[in-house]
Amino acid sequence: MDTMGRHVIAELWNCNMDKLNDINYIEKVFVDAALRAGAEVREVAFHKFAPHGVSGVVIISESHLTIHSFPEHGYASIDVYTCGDRIDPNVAADYIVEALEAQTNESVEVPRGMGPVEVKQSKAL
Amino acid sequence: MDTMGRHVIAELWNCNMDKLNDINYIEKVFVDAALRAGAEVREVAFHKFAPHGVSGVVIISESHLTIHSFPEHGYASIDVYTCGDRIDPNVAADYIVEALEAQTNESVEVPRGMGPVEVKQSKAL
Repeated sequence: MDTMGRHVIAELWNCNMDKLNDINYIEKVFVDAALRAGAEVREVAFHKFAPHGVSGVVIISESHLTIHSFPEHGYASIDVYTCGDRIDPNVAADYIVEALEAQTNESVEVPRGMGPVEVKQSKAL
Repeated sequence: MDTMGRHVIAELWNCNMDKLNDINYIEKVFVDAALRAGAEVREVAFHKFAPHGVSGVVIISESHLTIHSFPEHGYASIDVYTCGDRIDPNVAADYIVEALEAQTNESVEVPRGMGPVEVKQSKAL
């Protein structure tokens, strides 16, 4: 398999606080996001923290999606990393942004597996 | 919990190919790396691909560590993300670099949870 990959790092602010604290909802959103992007889901692991916050990962054949949510801050830290050129990580990231009702999405896309790490593009929506 | 975090993205090249294909070794290295950095391990999920390659994650109370290995290229794609200022993600990353016998480590540290995403520092060792 080729080492080339695309890694979207997204900082989501002003999200729906209730959704950020709902582990079942977040797990479903992340699996759905992977599938919508055309990825193959391999492992799913999510954890709920007390009193609030969810961390989780979906390992896909093409790499991974992760989240760490901070409901009390309306913030979610998202990573969508896909290897190869068949899948666009932004399809999954955009789906997650919408599902968490993020009002602000600050993201960068980092190319992976191609040599030194460089930031390819940044955007604030 | 404060949203502030540190995310080390490391591209490891010229690693030990046998170790990159050994799921049990990699899982142990990643759990040990988390513990050495002082993190609290919450979930562990690793997957072995055929004919080669390992993907996996250790979810810690302070965020996560991930790997995607490509033994045939001697390459491993590593992320070590720690929230808060109690833990230094480089402690875990450096341990992983040594355990995988990476001859080249190209890495950046990205601050998380602090606003727009920016690359804080880069280094090639």
